[in-house]
Amino acid sequence: MTRRPVVAVLEGARPVRGLERVAGLADVRIAQAPDLDRALDGAEVLFLWDYFSGALPAAWHAAGSLRWLHVAAAGVDRLLFPELVASDVVVTNAHGIFDQPMAEYVLGGMLHTAKGFGPLRDRQNEGVWAWREGRNIAGTRALVVGTGSIGRHTARLLRAVGVRVEGVGRTARGDDDAFGRVHASTDLERIVGDVDWLVLVAPLTPATEHLVDARVIDALPPTAVLVNAGRGRLVDEDALVRRLTAGTLAGAVLDTFAVEPLPGDHPLWSLPSVLVTPHMASNADSWLDDLAAQFERNFLLWAAGEPLPGVVDKALGYVPSRPVP
Amino acid sequence: MTRRPVVAVLEGARPVRGLERVAGLADVRIAQAPDLDRALDGAEVLFLWDYFSGALPAAWHAAGSLRWLHVAAAGVDRLLFPELVASDVVVTNAHGIFDQPMAEYVLGGMLHTAKGFGPLRDRQNEGVWAWREGRNIAGTRALVVGTGSIGRHTARLLRAVGVRVEGVGRTARGDDDAFGRVHASTDLERIVGDVDWLVLVAPLTPATEHLVDARVIDALPPTAVLVNAGRGRLVDEDALVRRLTAGTLAGAVLDTFAVEPLPGDHPLWSLPSVLVTPHMASNADSWLDDLAAQFERNFLLWAAGEPLPGVVDKALGYVPSRPVP
Repeated sequence: MTRRPVVAVLEGARPVRGLERVAGLADVRIAQAPDLDRALDGAEVLFLWDYFSGALPAAWHAAGSLRWLHVAAAGVDRLLFPELVASDVVVTNAHGIFDQPMAEYVLGGMLHTAKGFGPLRDRQNEGVWAWREGRNIAGTRALVVGTGSIGRHTARLLRAVGVRVEGVGRTARGDDDAFGRVHASTDLERIVGDVDWLVLVAPLTPATEHLVDARVIDALPPTAVLVNAGRGRLVDEDALVRRLTAGTLAGAVLDTFAVEPLPGDHPLWSLPSVLVTPHMASNADSWLDDLAAQFERNFLLWAAGEPLPGVVDKALGYVPSRPVP
Repeated sequence: MTRRPVVAVLEGARPVRGLERVAGLADVRIAQAPDLDRALDGAEVLFLWDYFSGALPAAWHAAGSLRWLHVAAAGVDRLLFPELVASDVVVTNAHGIFDQPMAEYVLGGMLHTAKGFGPLRDRQNEGVWAWREGRNIAGTRALVVGTGSIGRHTARLLRAVGVRVEGVGRTARGDDDAFGRVHASTDLERIVGDVDWLVLVAPLTPATEHLVDARVIDALPPTAVLVNAGRGRLVDEDALVRRLTAGTLAGAVLDTFAVEPLPGDHPLWSLPSVLVTPHMASNADSWLDDLAAQFERNFLLWAAGEPLPGVVDKALGYVPSRPVP
């Protein structure tokens, strides 16, 4: 009889659930940040249920047995520290789990802005009946930055309601089944001049930090709306605030920020044309159960020696949507 | 040379526009409410650009030449007074113009509620970062009450984003191309027990007033949300307020009310689970130009003796989506 593998789970504030089948095949050690190193000692597998925790670097000295790390998140920007990247540890993420809620958040944020629901909600809270026209989103043009699983699902949902969508990714291509045309992200400044919606669902990597810089922001037409459900640091927030405050940009729907929680004195809170949401775009319905079930499925594959889905390219910083040449 | 027809236009506060081709074929008399009778004297056609005006009954004595009345609205409940109904005057409405904005309003209202954007906007205005989960709308169940042009368009849009839709109309049927199944409105109380969204886009008629009465309201599950973009008097507002205030109904998105503007002291203003909008669901983008262009198209048909589209059945109180047996 072979030794049972050891699976460390970093739990955090939200109790982990639904790992019964893992526990049937492995010794599961549920840990909090201060005892993560003890849990890691001899563990082959680490499940980061507390997906935003920064505890791993300090416990890395105990991770000598680690072969596979699964994180219950899509973005791995807070996770990929140099020793992990340099190691042979396979990293997988919650690939696919967030596609539907993220796509619906983007569509909902677009409709929220198009129909003026933010200002109308403000008038409601004042008890004021102030008629105003809305806009239709059918026929408008969206650029979706990020061509992974979430971006593709978002593009398909927007197309289903009549929005004209193109994609922005690492490399330009013309035959994409979700986007039709994909532009290279290096062309962003040149191509945003006639968009209605600039939608960010890209991962944060050294290559995408401030991808939407002041030049891109300034190239947006006054009627455009920025929707950021990716990462705050994709955007030069100061440049965004400058145009929004000047009233030369129609609005923004923001779920992610350079600093989270968004500081209480940040100007984004009080701009009526902005909807600020607290990094919740990916969280809907059974997401916690789905995250646990996904790890369990992956663990059964791992235990059987099968290939894992959702493997992060640690050099790129995300799960490539197709093999990198 | 034949006499040019006379077209009276009730203008109201918003200037009428784009009737150049009508003016080329007819004598166009632009009137305000006090001089509507003078404009009607000898007029064969009346265009109610001021679509909510109640001025016509008082001027009806001068409408002896009137053959056709076109109103720049979908609902004709405020228009159909007994003398008009009893007359031979053909009534047409703005059939089709509002399909897209209304459908998008309904979808936007559903996503607004599902993602919690109302409460999140309130927290934003307090500068408070308060994470909360959303819901997905894909896979949820909507009943769309109203099987006319707007209802059918709404059903198709909701289906495109994965909502399971059925219709509610005058008569039950099983083979509808937009709804699949259509239930009879008399069955409403019995069938709402498992809906997520009860969507009202029906016309207000003697048959639909308080169609959603206290019994229907009370049959809704606690997780349900009412979306009313039809008319306020479709709903027993007191029964709705009672359940919302008790917290036993998830929410409501309301664009129409029994009394409009909604009175300043009405409890609907201050329920956080409700989005109150000021009867604007149908108003988006080029709607005013579209309304004028539609009348112009119809006038050219009328002048050529061709059948008119969007003819209201004055006994039913709306444009039937298919011939009434």
